Order: sequence, then structure tokens, then C-alpha cells
Amino acid sequence: MRYELYYWSGIQGRGEFVRLALEDAGADYVDVAREEGDDAIVRYLDGAHEGALPFAPPFLKAGRLVIAQTANILQYLGPPLSLLPQGTSVRRYAHQLQLTIADLVAEVHDAHHPIASGLYYEDQREEARRRAGDLRTQRLPKFLHYFEQVLERGGGRHALRRHSCVDLSLFQLMSGLNYAFPRMMQRLHAGLPLLHALHANVTQRPRIAAYLASTRRVPFNESGIFRHYPELDDPA
Amino acid sequence: MRYELYYWSGIQGRGEFVRLALEDAGADYVDVAREEGDDAIVRYLDGAHEGALPFAPPFLKAGRLVIAQTANILQYLGPPLSLLPQGTSVRRYAHQLQLTIADLVAEVHDAHHPIASGLYYEDQREEARRRAGDLRTQRLPKFLHYFEQVLERGGGRHALRRHSCVDLSLFQLMSGLNYAFPRMMQRLHAGLPLLHALHANVTQRPRIAAYLASTRRVPFNESGIFRHYPELDDPA
Repeated sequence: MRYELYYWSGIQGRGEFVRLALEDAGADYVDVAREEGDDAIVRYLDGAHEGALPFAPPFLKAGRLVIAQTANILQYLGPPLSLLPQGTSVRRYAHQLQLTIADLVAEVHDAHHPIASGLYYEDQREEARRRAGDLRTQRLPKFLHYFEQVLERGGGRHALRRHSCVDLSLFQLMSGLNYAFPRMMQRLHAGLPLLHALHANVTQRPRIAAYLASTRRVPFNESGIFRHYPELDDPA
Repeated sequence: MRYELYYWSGIQGRGEFVRLALEDAGADYVDVAREEGDDAIVRYLDGAHEGALPFAPPFLKAGRLVIAQTANILQYLGPPLSLLPQGTSVRRYAHQLQLTIADLVAEVHDAHHPIASGLYYEDQREEARRRAGDLRTQRLPKFLHYFEQVLERGGGRHALRRHSCVDLSLFQLMSGLNYAFPRMMQRLHAGLPLLHALHANVTQRPRIAAYLASTRRVPFNESGIFRHYPELDDPA
């Protein structure tokens, strides 16, 4: 099966959670918008194709199937890519974790865009400063300590007692937060040993290491979800 | 199977999407926090129980299984409650729609809480006015016209060509928006005939009608997700 991933070509964004799963599994896939331009996405969103209508990217085409929503795509890809354990209960739990990661990602996005995703950051900078303060002091510590506890319950090394797409998503989360909020992550470091160890372990997986060193990994930038605006990080 | 739903007792919130499915199916369930108080929820969140750890309510207990995240719960309940069609592809599409509804619900919440969910509305009223303006003019029309298109593709009456939990969730969405933004919904009314017809049809389903007339349906209020603050609606 050759998968077709549709996601904006210039950023990691939500597409990166899918890309990491495909890369880690060594799956055969094409990153459509990087080959054909972002218009290929827009044609789908405009309803030019039959079948399941996506509201937004990322979406995945697998044969005739079109699947949208990041966590939904990973739920679909998990079994064929051997990135989910056997068993419906553990898969429901895996999906719950993916959805909680998605919630956090939305909150991280809104920290630099608290008023309108259609406006520039510069047009909502004051509001962003207030919201990012709450994110750094309330929401992120709560989420990250939750995931630390999830790793504890998973035996320490993995969310689900073995490698899975959840670990890859937690890796991406930590990578993005390290980029966007280095001072905050330094402050929280001592309380998150398992998340930091997981991040290091995933970095060393051969296919992930090769991917991270390749040009396929778009660097973090200030058009994506994880943006480094020093004024939104902890005070120096 | 007697299901146990855990959700804050004083609001409809995200729990209502699960409650509507249970009510429509005539399922045997207990609304735990309404019987035992909200502390029953907090004990779970504090990790006092084994097994899958929820980050936030709603979560559902079904025998020994604990499932969190609204859309995940509905994915689980759909088949036994006969609220999802047969077939893995259509169920993936159903789930994609539930996740898109969940995204919209989060945006509606953030319209009155754009800075911090832990602060009062009154402490972020100016920011809320700005964000609600964007919601009413950009985001909500985009989402609602998307769902209108989904109904068109479903044959007009249903999201999935037959009654499902997706229809119940779209009903709840329309109910909440009618409550929170009556002037905006009036403005958009003519462009959303299928969503309005679906709302009317679901209201008349016998078990839903009985539920809506019962004391189990907590009225919308200004502690929930859908809040009526006239200053956040279209200008009079």
C-alpha cells in the first residue's frame, strides 16, 4: 500500500504526527503537497472529490479511502504499521492518549493565536502574552505531568508497555515544546524524567534518526504550531 | 451492561454528547457525579484507581473498562447502542466527524475563555469579544457550512445516511449555538436548511423528547460550554 499524506508543505504542524509514524515504520508514502503544491489539498477541501469530506489537513489517502483528523489517521495506520499493540481495550486507551495530545497541541497553537487563527501573531501579541503565561504555568505542567504518569503506568519506557505511535507523538510534543519554550522546559525538566528519556530514546531509533537528519524533516519555524517567540517563554 | 458516566454535575458540557447517545438508545446508565457528587470524578483524575487514566471528564466506566475523550466514548458506544452503521470505513468517517465536532466545541468554549480556562469570563471579557467576533464571522460559518455539506452528501437527512450518534451530536451543537448566539444563528439560518431540519427531527425522537422534558437535561447555563453573553453575539 502506497499511502498519500496531504498536509501543508511548509510546516511540520499536525501532519508531522502522521509523518513520524510512516517514517518510523519505513512505510511507502508520498507527501503530496510537497510534490504537487498545497493546491492539491485545497481541491479536496473544496469538495472536488467524492467520498469522505475532510474539514482540514492532515488527511490520508489509502487506496480509495480518505481519512482525516490526526488521531483518526493514526488509529487507522497503527495496526498495519505495527505501531499499536493487539487488543481493543489497549487501542482505545492509545486513542484516548492521542486525543489528549491533540488537545494539548491545540492549546499550544492558541497560545500564539488566542484571538483568531486567520490573523497574524503580531495582531494578537498582547493577548498571546497573557494566554502563553497561563499555558506555561497551568496547562502545560498539568498535561506534561499527566503524560509522565502515563509513562509510569506503562512501566517507565513506553506509554503502552511497548513502542507505539503514542510514543512517537509524545516525542514530537517534547521536541516542539523544547523548541518553543526552552526556558519553561528547563524549569520543568527535573519533574519529567520519563518524558525526557522517551524523547532521547525515540531520537535514536534508526529510521527516526535518519528522518530527522534528512531534508524531509522541515525545521520548526514561526509558521507552524510550535513557535519560538522568546516573549512567550518564561522570563529570562 | 450498566454504564457509568462521569461528568461534572452542573453543566451539559462535553458529557452531554455521551448522555444524548445513552438516552436515545434507552441504555441503562448512571450519571455518577449527579448521584455521588463531583468528588467521584476528582478521585479518578487524581489517579486513585488502576487502569486507563483519564485526563479530564467525560469518561465512561463499562464493567472494568474506563474510556475517556468524548469522541472515543462515542466510538465505543456506537455499535452496542446501534448508533453507528456497520462497516469500518463508514465508522472511520463517523469518527472523523465526531472529532471535527469536538474541535468546534473547543473553539466555542474558547470564545468566552480565550486567555485561560481557569480565569472567570469577566477577567477576559475584552479578549472574548475579539475572539467571539472571529468565531461568528469566520470559524462558525466555515464549520457549519462544512456540516451542511456533510448532510448533503449523506442524502439530506442524516450525516451517515441513517440515524447515528453523529446526528445526535450535530443536534446538540445546533441546540447550543441557538442558545449562545441566537442573532448569529438567525443570520446564518437560510444557508443551513439541512442542519435545522436535522435539529427539528432529532428533537422529535420519542426518547430524546422525553429526555429534553425531564430534569435529567440540565438547562444551558453560563458555567457550560455554550454560554449566552449577548455582547458576544452579533450586534442587535
